[in-house]
Order: sequence, then C-alpha cells, then structure tokens
Amino acid sequence: MSKKHSQVTILDSSLRDGAQAESINFSVQDKISIVKLLDKLGVEYIEAGNPSSNPKDAEFFREVQKVKLTTSKLVAFGSTRLKDISCENDINLKNLVESGTDTVSIFGKSWDFQVTEVLKTSLQENLSMIYETCVFLKKHGKTIIFDAEHFFDGYASNPDYAIRTLKSAIEGGAEIITLCDTNGGTMPMEILKATTYITSEFQDLENVQFGIHTHNDGGLAVANSLMGLEGGCTHIQGTLLGFGERTGNANLSTIIPSLELKLGVTCLPKGRLHLLTPICREIAEISNMIFPDFMPYVGTNSFAHKAGMHIDAVKKNPIAYEHINPDKIGNERVFLLSEVSGRAMILDKISRIDPSIKKDDEILNEIMKQMKDLEKDGYSFEGAEGSFDIFARKIIGKYKSFFKLHYYKLMSERPNIDENVSTVVQLKIEVDGKVALTSGEGRGPIHALDTALRNALRQFFPVVNEIRLTDYKVRVIDSFTGTINATSPTAAVVRVLIESTDGSDVWTTVGVSQDIIEASWKALVDSFEYKLSRLK
Amino acid sequence: MSKKHSQVTILDSSLRDGAQAESINFSVQDKISIVKLLDKLGVEYIEAGNPSSNPKDAEFFREVQKVKLTTSKLVAFGSTRLKDISCENDINLKNLVESGTDTVSIFGKSWDFQVTEVLKTSLQENLSMIYETCVFLKKHGKTIIFDAEHFFDGYASNPDYAIRTLKSAIEGGAEIITLCDTNGGTMPMEILKATTYITSEFQDLENVQFGIHTHNDGGLAVANSLMGLEGGCTHIQGTLLGFGERTGNANLSTIIPSLELKLGVTCLPKGRLHLLTPICREIAEISNMIFPDFMPYVGTNSFAHKAGMHIDAVKKNPIAYEHINPDKIGNERVFLLSEVSGRAMILDKISRIDPSIKKDDEILNEIMKQMKDLEKDGYSFEGAEGSFDIFARKIIGKYKSFFKLHYYKLMSERPNIDENVSTVVQLKIEVDGKVALTSGEGRGPIHALDTALRNALRQFFPVVNEIRLTDYKVRVIDSFTGTINATSPTAAVVRVLIESTDGSDVWTTVGVSQDIIEASWKALVDSFEYKLSRLK
Repeated sequence: MSKKHSQVTILDSSLRDGAQAESINFSVQDKISIVKLLDKLGVEYIEAGNPSSNPKDAEFFREVQKVKLTTSKLVAFGSTRLKDISCENDINLKNLVESGTDTVSIFGKSWDFQVTEVLKTSLQENLSMIYETCVFLKKHGKTIIFDAEHFFDGYASNPDYAIRTLKSAIEGGAEIITLCDTNGGTMPMEILKATTYITSEFQDLENVQFGIHTHNDGGLAVANSLMGLEGGCTHIQGTLLGFGERTGNANLSTIIPSLELKLGVTCLPKGRLHLLTPICREIAEISNMIFPDFMPYVGTNSFAHKAGMHIDAVKKNPIAYEHINPDKIGNERVFLLSEVSGRAMILDKISRIDPSIKKDDEILNEIMKQMKDLEKDGYSFEGAEGSFDIFARKIIGKYKSFFKLHYYKLMSERPNIDENVSTVVQLKIEVDGKVALTSGEGRGPIHALDTALRNALRQFFPVVNEIRLTDYKVRVIDSFTGTINATSPTAAVVRVLIESTDGSDVWTTVGVSQDIIEASWKALVDSFEYKLSRLK
Repeated sequence: MSKKHSQVTILDSSLRDGAQAESINFSVQDKISIVKLLDKLGVEYIEAGNPSSNPKDAEFFREVQKVKLTTSKLVAFGSTRLKDISCENDINLKNLVESGTDTVSIFGKSWDFQVTEVLKTSLQENLSMIYETCVFLKKHGKTIIFDAEHFFDGYASNPDYAIRTLKSAIEGGAEIITLCDTNGGTMPMEILKATTYITSEFQDLENVQFGIHTHNDGGLAVANSLMGLEGGCTHIQGTLLGFGERTGNANLSTIIPSLELKLGVTCLPKGRLHLLTPICREIAEISNMIFPDFMPYVGTNSFAHKAGMHIDAVKKNPIAYEHINPDKIGNERVFLLSEVSGRAMILDKISRIDPSIKKDDEILNEIMKQMKDLEKDGYSFEGAEGSFDIFARKIIGKYKSFFKLHYYKLMSERPNIDENVSTVVQLKIEVDGKVALTSGEGRGPIHALDTALRNALRQFFPVVNEIRLTDYKVRVIDSFTGTINATSPTAAVVRVLIESTDGSDVWTTVGVSQDIIEASWKALVDSFEYKLSRLK
C-alpha cells in the first residue's frame, strides 16, 4: 500500500554537497547568485555550506544575511559534536550557531561500521553525540534537520543500531530526519522496504518528518528518491542539476517535474514550475558546468527529435513521442538537422529562405547530399542554424557574398607585445571593388580576428557595431590517436561554435578545420554574413 | 512478492536505437568495431541496425557476415509490415529476411492512439500486421523479438487492446515480447505493476520470455529496467553507454554491474565483468562521444574522492565511501587534487618528489595557497598530474628548468601557404648557454608549436623523439558574457589539456590563458619538462 503524501519539501544542496563535485569551485558571489535563483524557483530549503569548512563559506554566511529571500529558508550544514568533548567546546557547533540561519542540518553516523572503524569511537558515544548536539542546537533556537549518514548501509548491517541513532536525534529535538544513501549503491526495492518500515515505526510522532537523500552511484538517485516518497518520506534532498561527489546527487530538476506533473505531489509554490529550465541553465552557467544536453526535462535535447518518422509523428501530435509538454517546465521542442532527419525537416528550414521549394524538388536532394558530406568532415548543423542558413542559401542560389577575403595574416608572439595583446591580425578584404586593409589586436587569435574583421566591415556596414559575440565553444572531435609527431603530422579536427546577438536576435554559427584559427574564422564570417543577409 | 529470475539476457541497441542520439554518426567500420567489442563483453544480443533505413546499414549487414562472433547473436531490426499490403510485398520485410541474421526484432504499435492517429489505420488491421509479420518471419526461420512500442502508454490508456497486441505477436510465433516505454515518461511503480500483471497473465507460456525497453526522459531508465526485472521480465534492452534519442536509452553499463554484483542475477558469461570499463571507454572513443565523467560505475569520477574527510576514510577502508570495489568492473579509485582535498592528499602526491616533507611543513601551506590562486585563474590540476608535479617542484625548489624561451613567433595565414600547412612558428630557446633557433610548420597553431619546440629540443635531448601527444582537449571555462567588442576587449579564458606518452608512461598537462595559443604552449612545455625531469 502506498503511503505517498501529496506535499513534500525540497532541500537543494548544490552549494554544499554539490560543491564536492569535480571541477566545481564557487566564489562567494557565485553562491549568492545561486541562492537568489533557488529562492526564485521556490525550493523550501537551501543548504548553502558549512561555516566551519573554509573561510569562503564563513564569509558567505556573513554576506548572505544582506539578501532578502521571499520563499526559501537558508540552512547551514555541520556535523554532530566531536567525540569526547562537550558541545559548548566544539568550535564547529559554535560556528553553526553563529552562522545566522534559523534552520541547521547536521549529519551523524547511522552505520555501526562507520562509528567503530572510521570515527573510532563507541556505539554509545555516537548516540550521545547525536542526542547532545540536537539538544544544544535546539537550546539555541534552531530548527534541526538530522542527516542520518549511511543510513541504508547501517540498516542493512545493524538495523537496531541504525534505528537507535534516529531515535537519539528525535529525542534531542530534530524535526526532519533524513535517511541518507551516502555511498549511493542501494537498490530501489531496498529503499522502498526500509523507508516503509521506518515511517511506520515512527508514525505516531506528529512533529517529525522523514526525508530521503540519495546519490547516483547506481544510476538510481532519482528513482530512489521516488521510492522514499512511496515509502512515506515527505522531504527530498538533492542538487538542482544533479552534481555532487563521484557520480552526483539526486537530480532535483528531474524529481521536481515528476512530482508536480506525474505523481500529483506539490513541491513548489504555484506558478513557478515554468521557471525550471531557465533557472537550471543559469545555475549551470554560474557553476561553470557543462550542462549535459541529454539531461531529463531541462536538457537541450530532452525534446529534440532526429528520426524522420518521429518528427512526422510529433508534428501530427506531440504526445506521440513526448512524455510531457515542454512548455510546462520552460523547455522547448527541437527538430534536429541531420542526415536521418529527413526531407520534411530540411524543407521546413529552407522554406524560410525560399517558400517556392517543394517537397520533391531536386535541390532538396542536393542539400541533403552536401550536408552529409560536411557531416563526414566533422560539421554539425544541429544547434548552428546561422551557418545552416548560409549553407542552404549557397546551394539554392540565394547567397550574397558581402565581402571577399584577400588574406589575413595572424601573428602571435611570446613574450607578448603588451599585457592586453598577444595576437595581431592584418586583414585585407574587398567590398564592391573597394579594398579595406585593417589590423586588429587581441587577447588570443579569435579576439584579434574579430577585431580586425569588424574594423574592416564597419566602413561598409555600420550595423556590425550592433553585433556582439556572446559565447564561444570549442570541441576537439577527433583525438590525435598518436599521429602528431615529426614524421606523420596529422592534427585533430576542431569544431568551433560562436553565438552572437544584435540585442534582439541570437544566432549560432559553426566552423570546422584541423586548424583552430581557421575554424574560428569560418564561424566568425558566417556570423557576420548571417546578420547582413537578414537586413531589409 | 518478487518474481525476479536469476538469469537475464541483454540486448544492446547502441548501433540502432543509440544511433538516434544527437551527434552520433557511425561509419560501417565503426559499427563493425563496436560489434566486436560487444561480443568480447558478452552481451547476448547485438541489435545492429535497420537494413531498410539507409544504404550504410545495408552495407553493414553484408560486411558483418565476415566477422566471426564468439558469444553474441546479431539482430536486424525492422517494423511490422505496412498497412493494407501483404508481407510478401513489403520491401522492408524482404530486406530484414535477407539481412542474414538468425534473430530479428520488429516493432509494432501497442497504443491505440498511435494506431489510429499516427499510423491512421484500424485497431484490427494493426493486430493483423503484427500477427502476419511474425508468421512470415517465422516461416523464414527467424527467431523473433517483438518490441511492443509505447506499451506502457497503451496499457494505461487501453489495457485490453495493449494486451491483445502482445497476444497477436505470441500467436504469430514471437519468442521474446519486449514491453517498451518509448516516450520514457513512465514512473517506476507503474512499470512494476504493469510488468507484474503481464508476466502473470502469460505465465503458462513456457517458450515466451518478456523483456523491458526503457528511455530516460524521466531520469528513470535504469530503475525502470530493474522494476521490469522485479516484475518478472528476463530480457533487458538498452545501450551500453546510455546514448539514444532525446535523453537516451537505459544505460547497460549501469544495469549490468547492478545485476551481477548486487541483485544476484547473471547476464554475462563468467569472467567478463572486469572488461566493462575499458570496453565502454573504447566504444565512447569510436562513437566520438564525450564520456561523462560522472557516469555510474564506469565514469572516471565514479570512484573519485575530493573531500579530505572522505579521502581519509577511504584510505582506512574503501567501503566507507564506495558502494563496490572498482576493480570488479575494471575501473579505479582516484583521489582528486583540489582546494578541499586537504593536506594529507597533497602530501601523498608530493612525497614522491621529496619524501622528507612532513605533514606540518610550512611548504605544504604554501603549495595549497598557490594552488588556490591558480584555481581562481581557471587552473585545475584534477586530472593533470604532470603539471601538478612541475608546479610543486617549483615551490619545493626541486624544479630544474631545461630550457629558456627567448621567443616564439607564430604566423598563420589564409589563404594557406600550402594544403598541409596553415601555421608557421619560429622559435628561439637556450639550453646551458647554447642557443637553438628553429622553425616548425603545422596544420594549426598547436601542431606548429609542437613541431618547432621538438625540433629545438631534440638537439639537446634526443629522448623527445619518444614523446607523442595522444590527446588534446579545450575547455572554454568562461563565456564571453558580451564583453568582446571593440570598446571592451576582454576574451574568454581557455583551459587546454594535453595527454602525452612515451610508449609506456602516460601523463597529462594543463595550460590556462585568455589566449588559446598561449594556453597550449604552457601545456606543451609542461609535457616536455615532465618527461625530462623523470630521466635518470
């Protein structure tokens, strides 16, 4: 029998457990920006750091007090007191009390092995540490979330002791008891059984909530959270983008829409769910994290269709190959351009250039053939609609060249010429028979090329002043496979994507070459030509 | 009550459903290489393509007949016959029969909505299509896997009809009936209920197996496969690395070790499991796919520890923060270098340089401080042990400079000088008072720099001839955020990683700069210096 409730609270730990992920390094300002975004999304709790772990977190807790939150509660994280001392003498607990948050979360050991082998103390002392820490924090007016670390491993190895640790926390005054699968390896049916048993065992306690905190080592963090819900938990912990140590924490951007849209469980204030995708992407940006395209619900590919047959069906009715309407979470449907995407898809794109082209036109075959050839060279027009537009115009005969390159010469030196310049470009182009010879300096080759080309073009097309480059991505799509050496000099192929804007429109262009400078040049030229071709 | 069996068969569809993933484009040779690797791993079935979908797949099925498989069975994929024609007149079925595989999988519709709205035919005709197609293939001696497309959506909307489609396939002679969650949005408890019901309903049929095929749109593909197992399925379909359309298919590299190591279910021949990680990485390489570091079990971060406290505990006993022993699947434990990894970790690394340094040495603080500063600039020594070694040597005073750079001048031109050269580098270095002035040409700046530096160094250190660059990665760790323009020329920061080998040892070095050429130069210099510092 399902014990599922219709409302749960969410705790986001991106700033604490998420910070354990490889290559995550938050500045104080990053953390504050993320707190504001999570508050806007409306998660109940934001676990924001451990004031004792490093000076940056201590500074953060001072700074964040200036931020006014409208929805979320800030939570400081720490551990139960050290063994064999009193709470009053524990500097970490002192920091926790002084962090200024009304709610604190503390973790303690629930696995007998961890107590005796890692903590190297007695099972009884561990119970006292949990109980006394809760009493101490309660005395200082805190609301307490107790994270029962390694609970499921403990429950499997010594269930009586694992349950006694929970009792100690409850008796000490903890309001939320979170059952943690710290090593992330527990199977879903085990989570279901254990949570069902625990919530039954304590069902008479009206003021205590049970929570679930999972890791993804078995690829099951999301499912295990849902099993916890099924077992009667009403509090779910995770990180918005799933990042965390090793394979990551439970991904809240997956859990939240499943709760709200599929399981009839409320976890956000009304009217916030459509903010999910944009907020996820902004947090990924701040976290300097590569956002996986294939992330459920919020990824750029999550509603992307490639097979011709699927595209046809989705056009008839989206539910044919979509599990939810992407609008509900602020994401959108995408039809990918590729060799398998079929004629209908290509036609759809090029009818904007020339509406007279029909489905059985020979030109369509030609476009598909040339696309396939370019894809073999490493091109991909998926996500580079600007370059596809120019590519298709060339074949259809609707392409207008805006300038002719005579040459560019790029010179990079080290030691550098001066601190702000490492590369100089000299460039000669021709527009309607008039020649422009310009130079450009920059920090790096792309910057210098952009400056030189802009200097040349603005004499003829003042509109280039409006164009800004907003993003730049490099993908090495071929590793060297050992072929770079003096006797067999073959380099890797590089794909460069450039995103540009004129303030209202945004477009992306692509360039591919073994030479990263040439690949960047191609993407840059496409970007300017795309904008110019749209004028009038 | 669990109906779980102790043995299941695995079907890998990387080459068919996996090929629907964005940016996957297999050549015939890629597909053959992957078939051999899957056979080595020992999956029961390899679903390798649809001989009717494109000429490449047709060619593949001709070529693959020359490959001798020792463990796996090859499967060709297709659809039930078209509506309103006979099987004999269906060209796709003809191709399927001629593909030369003993086993074929065919998909048919189990969701009434798909039949009437997408296929635009009657519910009865769909049943005939399923039944007649199976009879036809059986007559041609094929073993049949029937994929009941959209089964779970169909079961939710019209369970009687969904079950009738399965019966049609069974009556037609299908041996394996795969229940598919094609849109990937079904919740685990629904999968459990439906599979439990279906396997009970058909439990008297001794020669029919039930399978489960899931997609990850709800982040639940792995869990839903395990729910299918719990519900009595004995056949699991997925893709080894989880790739597939939208958010991907069920990840077999996650499912296989969970079955074998945690659930007591056999799915591979004895003695193959330790091949899992290397084979996954090789397939990722062939697929030109970025392998997520955080992939459960087989990712490079799956057993990586960063927090100082966790590292200490794992050193005491790995089960403290590891759910399985990574050796069992051919993966390995990693301790990451970072500002939170703590003194013990850093000490561990630098004791190889100078064993006399102790835990409370002041030099350790200095190293940690300078590491933090570099991390702020965008450096990351996680995974770049070669550069960390040189960095630490410099602080400890054990660094020996092997050469002094007077200058390099890099010149890149377009139109190119000739087809194999786009960049020329002139370089002047000094070794022990002797000057070397050399040049190098290359396809792109990194290649030219490498050639020039190698030409200079080999006069002094012939050992550089043994060094080969084997991989090159570029990460733009800061987007432009609109700051590249003529008035405020600030470029993005770029991190370059270079992997090198001398045939036995492999090392990685890192360089960071706003200028990609300078970042590459730094990584390149570290690579040569690392090798030279190890001599004698």
